[in-house]
Amino acid sequence: MSRCTGFRFGAAACGIKSSGDLDLGIIASERPAAAAAVFTRNRLAAAPVIVSRRALRESGGELGAVVVNSGNANACTGTGGERDAATMQSRTAARLDLVASRVAVASTGVIGEPLPMNAVTTGIENAAAALDPDGWDQFSRAILTTDRGPKVARRTARIDGGEATLLGCTKGAGMIAPDMATTLTFVVSDAEIGAGALGDAVRAGCAETFNAITVDGDTSTNDMILVMANGASGARASGPAEQQRLGRALNDLLAELATSLMRDGEGVHHVVTVRVTGAADEASARRVARAIAISPLVKTAIAGRDPNWGRILCAAGNAGVELAPDRLALRVGDVEIVRGGVAVPEWPEREARAAEVMSRPEYTVELDLGGGAARGHYLACDLSHDYVTINADYRT
Amino acid sequence: MSRCTGFRFGAAACGIKSSGDLDLGIIASERPAAAAAVFTRNRLAAAPVIVSRRALRESGGELGAVVVNSGNANACTGTGGERDAATMQSRTAARLDLVASRVAVASTGVIGEPLPMNAVTTGIENAAAALDPDGWDQFSRAILTTDRGPKVARRTARIDGGEATLLGCTKGAGMIAPDMATTLTFVVSDAEIGAGALGDAVRAGCAETFNAITVDGDTSTNDMILVMANGASGARASGPAEQQRLGRALNDLLAELATSLMRDGEGVHHVVTVRVTGAADEASARRVARAIAISPLVKTAIAGRDPNWGRILCAAGNAGVELAPDRLALRVGDVEIVRGGVAVPEWPEREARAAEVMSRPEYTVELDLGGGAARGHYLACDLSHDYVTINADYRT
Repeated sequence: MSRCTGFRFGAAACGIKSSGDLDLGIIASERPAAAAAVFTRNRLAAAPVIVSRRALRESGGELGAVVVNSGNANACTGTGGERDAATMQSRTAARLDLVASRVAVASTGVIGEPLPMNAVTTGIENAAAALDPDGWDQFSRAILTTDRGPKVARRTARIDGGEATLLGCTKGAGMIAPDMATTLTFVVSDAEIGAGALGDAVRAGCAETFNAITVDGDTSTNDMILVMANGASGARASGPAEQQRLGRALNDLLAELATSLMRDGEGVHHVVTVRVTGAADEASARRVARAIAISPLVKTAIAGRDPNWGRILCAAGNAGVELAPDRLALRVGDVEIVRGGVAVPEWPEREARAAEVMSRPEYTVELDLGGGAARGHYLACDLSHDYVTINADYRT
Repeated sequence: MSRCTGFRFGAAACGIKSSGDLDLGIIASERPAAAAAVFTRNRLAAAPVIVSRRALRESGGELGAVVVNSGNANACTGTGGERDAATMQSRTAARLDLVASRVAVASTGVIGEPLPMNAVTTGIENAAAALDPDGWDQFSRAILTTDRGPKVARRTARIDGGEATLLGCTKGAGMIAPDMATTLTFVVSDAEIGAGALGDAVRAGCAETFNAITVDGDTSTNDMILVMANGASGARASGPAEQQRLGRALNDLLAELATSLMRDGEGVHHVVTVRVTGAADEASARRVARAIAISPLVKTAIAGRDPNWGRILCAAGNAGVELAPDRLALRVGDVEIVRGGVAVPEWPEREARAAEVMSRPEYTVELDLGGGAARGHYLACDLSHDYVTINADYRT
């Protein structure tokens, strides 16, 4: 059973989704929880993002609940949309006896259409009535859109005073849904930790995980990772060592969620870890890894299981990072392809082995820049016919 | 007949391409020509790019010839590749009685394989023997790879002392070829103009044209635009007004070539001009236009003829440019879709009309940021099944 001390979870099907599936969820903490979030950098942030940012600011990073709907993103909906998000917030707060600024709001689904507020209001009522320590599975389903199934992960960390639990769930690989394209991630923990330290942990974890995956390089108007820690377990991350231990558990949990997000992406058949080593600094390593991971030519080569190493090097060359061409070394899985910037002499005989690696659902591409000790990675996937079908043909 | 006073053009089929098509071309000027170029920014520039950059530097921007091969990019070929490119240069120079540094070199085709130098040497011999004032059409064919046909354009400009001609040809929409992905463009003119002024004109023209198109956002290791002006017509661009007039003609010619490049892209069914107005400055306008043009979600919507305006706004929000959401206005063709950041009330009735516009092979998407007087544009295309097929499936 997935529980986290002091948290209750509720879900309802209120008719935002025409399918009749769960489409509204609430997480409530029995005591004020330290909270931190990473939000989309898109300049057209959706109304719920604006409202949640404000809540974290006004509450000083202390929340009592979060309310989420799926089926409608409440994005590009103008001032009316902001009013609706604020109403979601205040209704949930009133129902749970909280100040409005202690409630975060998230939405995902169709863009540009007003939220059906009658349905939402009923949903809040029903989800609040359903709040239960064992409601995690229901909640994790209520946030889904075109996902094939719920994506959850659990970690524990032994810190001061006992063992803390972390529960996380995520939805919707970026840009894969037909109309909208949102990643929402929620993590609850019964650890005790300050909002500042929690924020550091979330940002660090996010950089290594959710900010290092790409399906197609777009960033939705609604993306949000929200972490709440209520201290109900009695386990405290009081010092730097404990905070680090809790941070590692969080990092791990986010990595699992990010990977499951990639795996669940519709049109995704291969999840590829692009690892860059030998860089001057971590930022450069990550930039090169990202340039490879987002290149359409690399992504179609992944789809075609084609060890077309020229495309990988060419993409690396576009990262805006200085490279020493004659120091580059490239491996696909355990197959060495490039050494000193050119194909190894044995390449013709190795090509079939490299293609075999690329037929696997998960593998690693490693590019050594030969110039330093820093490294970085990015998760990539294929650009397939299914991707085009899902995103271009869904109206026909 | 496409002629340009004082220039001769030659082509040969020397067997680099297994098809037996023309695969080596030479342009030779009867007198030293002012020359300027724009090269790829990819950090793994191919050997011919390195050699041509050096030629322009060493000659002070004065060339006598350019030699081009197709079928092999001579990229990621290490020091051996550089030696081969230098040999192409010196052989051509010797044959034409020029100093080596007066010859530029370009290559396009398969990456990572050594140039077949026997074939190349024969090709240089035969192309030089074929040099002819009427050889332009042959030359423009010799540079092609997976292009469906040659892409040429011609302009004239009336300047001091007479009428100058500009002839241009281009090849290979970026990232569309299976193995390599190069844009090569050559322009010759019989105008008289200094290398400095010519460089300014080329860079300005390129920013508006070739640097404002995207098929998939990648930049090859071999991209090059080279312009040579030999003054043989007697028409002089001596003052700023004449230089501007010649620059406009060059701009126009490059715009035509860039558009024909997009149209000829395999897998491209729609060429869309993304126009951004109302920006604070031109750079911001172009950044927003580019963010829209490269978004896979926008490109699949173009493929699906789907007026999914939320994707366009979302992509604009990812440009890293400050936007006032409530001032945005969007049109597809002549159909107004968004006003004040939200869909116009008549949108449901207009959707079919917008879809009709998007079924055309060419149309314009215009986003008004409502914040200034600056504007910019980018040419976009669809991300189609054909693109995936060409780039992922060609080995099967």
